Amino acid sequence: MSPILITGGTGFAGSHLIEALLEKGVPAADIHVTNLVKKPSFVDTILPEANIHQLDLTHSRATFELFAKLKPRSIYHLASFSSPSLSLENTTKAIETNVEIQMNVLEAMREHTPQARLLSIGSASEYAGSTEPLTEISQLGPHDPYGVSKVAQDMLAYSYTVRYELGIVRVRPFNHIGERQEPGFVVSDFAQQIVKIEKGLERELRVGNLTVSRDFSDVKDIVRGYILLMTKGQAGQVYNLGSGQDVTIQELLDKMKSFAKVGLSVSPEERKQRPGDIGRSVADITKIKALGWQPTIPLDETLQRILNWWRLKLLEGTA
Amino acid sequence: MSPILITGGTGFAGSHLIEALLEKGVPAADIHVTNLVKKPSFVDTILPEANIHQLDLTHSRATFELFAKLKPRSIYHLASFSSPSLSLENTTKAIETNVEIQMNVLEAMREHTPQARLLSIGSASEYAGSTEPLTEISQLGPHDPYGVSKVAQDMLAYSYTVRYELGIVRVRPFNHIGERQEPGFVVSDFAQQIVKIEKGLERELRVGNLTVSRDFSDVKDIVRGYILLMTKGQAGQVYNLGSGQDVTIQELLDKMKSFAKVGLSVSPEERKQRPGDIGRSVADITKIKALGWQPTIPLDETLQRILNWWRLKLLEGTA
Repeated sequence: MSPILITGGTGFAGSHLIEALLEKGVPAADIHVTNLVKKPSFVDTILPEANIHQLDLTHSRATFELFAKLKPRSIYHLASFSSPSLSLENTTKAIETNVEIQMNVLEAMREHTPQARLLSIGSASEYAGSTEPLTEISQLGPHDPYGVSKVAQDMLAYSYTVRYELGIVRVRPFNHIGERQEPGFVVSDFAQQIVKIEKGLERELRVGNLTVSRDFSDVKDIVRGYILLMTKGQAGQVYNLGSGQDVTIQELLDKMKSFAKVGLSVSPEERKQRPGDIGRSVADITKIKALGWQPTIPLDETLQRILNWWRLKLLEGTA
Repeated sequence: MSPILITGGTGFAGSHLIEALLEKGVPAADIHVTNLVKKPSFVDTILPEANIHQLDLTHSRATFELFAKLKPRSIYHLASFSSPSLSLENTTKAIETNVEIQMNVLEAMREHTPQARLLSIGSASEYAGSTEPLTEISQLGPHDPYGVSKVAQDMLAYSYTVRYELGIVRVRPFNHIGERQEPGFVVSDFAQQIVKIEKGLERELRVGNLTVSRDFSDVKDIVRGYILLMTKGQAGQVYNLGSGQDVTIQELLDKMKSFAKVGLSVSPEERKQRPGDIGRSVADITKIKALGWQPTIPLDETLQRILNWWRLKLLEGTA
């Protein structure tokens, strides 16, 4: 039986997706992933070594060879230059990397697995700022190069779907958080700092802009949405995926402070300000709810789990 | 006084834009253009040689140097990989060229002329197929890589406007036609064939898909819209520019046949079919009409002018 392929599968969302697939009874032998750089990761502990393919998806020949060899039936296409903040310093690289990855994967699919299903991962960053909840037909208008690159990926996926009749479903996930996320993202950043302060290794919690609000989901809810869309999503369609609720970064900080084992003093940091960021971003999730998905994990629970994960990491000396 | 810069200014729309600016009394000395390849063009006859800058805008240093030297006050940014049909064979090149051009021009503007005004040229190809007239908030969903590249340019321009507060206006022109357009575009293609048949040089008019409908404007109306938007368009906003009427390619063909000096036999050609093309594309032009623009040149007049231009070209031996 042809396998499931998860591009960028050793990353944050990928690792949670694999866990979710294994929990649903998919054999580990059926799950293949790509990663850009060979380095030890959590995924090594749950997948056979032979199923982890070191591969730069910006290289078309290597991408084509992988598709020719594996002939995947389902492709969760997660690989991406994924940091909005880094994209501001690396505009060209962010956009060109994501365009090249997308073109190679779509062309490889068209050539070798035209009957497969593919889930193309967009982003809430594709939308223009709005004080209203964002539906799938809200105006696109990214504020950073990362968002531009995700619009380009999204539109490429759409164009291949309509021109070549491929089975591509698109999703626009809003912010998601959980264990194993890099500290470049706000909740991991706060959590890492908090556990260091608890241990007396740091003194102050350095923070950026606290006034913006975002729609945060547990990554475990998000990957459950990906699995649902792979089977029930309609080819050619795009689906928002988020909690449908927004919180300000200040509210998030207050929650995390209340879960900390020590009192925390907070210090605003100029470097972390990002003028031009969107003020509010919250998903209208009516469309994916109609397919039977809804968020299940309360934000407080997720935040406490993340703090505990960082505490363990610090204890192990890997934080 | 700082000059006007027209990127890609020796091309089809650029050459008409220069004519329109000269007619409005702008001195030729104030108009600078870039072209990718040094070759004789109509623009050589209307601008000083020193104002025509041979330049590959995908090269960032050369682009920066030009902006530093000229310090343009108005930038009509027309340069683009501009062929939808060629983009189907050169997906990577079409997208990467247009992304690189856009990033270099925007970065050069941000660095050297942050007070300038820039008109960013999008396309009707950015929109998803719809049987209804397309407004600026209609869904984006290009059917070809050219359209994807124009969405990427459009979104990049938007992100620079909101993040760096630059004076960028965006426009989405629908199909435009006139003298000096390449035969890769349908009306020029028909006109070139017709005048050859009139001269007995060819026998049959080879045609592609005749059932789709498009919104055609005279390029002279389009460049008048560009000039209006440069002064009256609102930064951060995007404007459709078209006739607001669509005709099928069959109707266009029938009109041109009726203007031919001989009877024509028509032969459908497989190679010119483009499955996956959008069925209907017509602009809602309410937004730009509110600024005081409207189309003025009847389609029949434009088609006859184009035929006459090709007849002259054939007579001169340059068709």
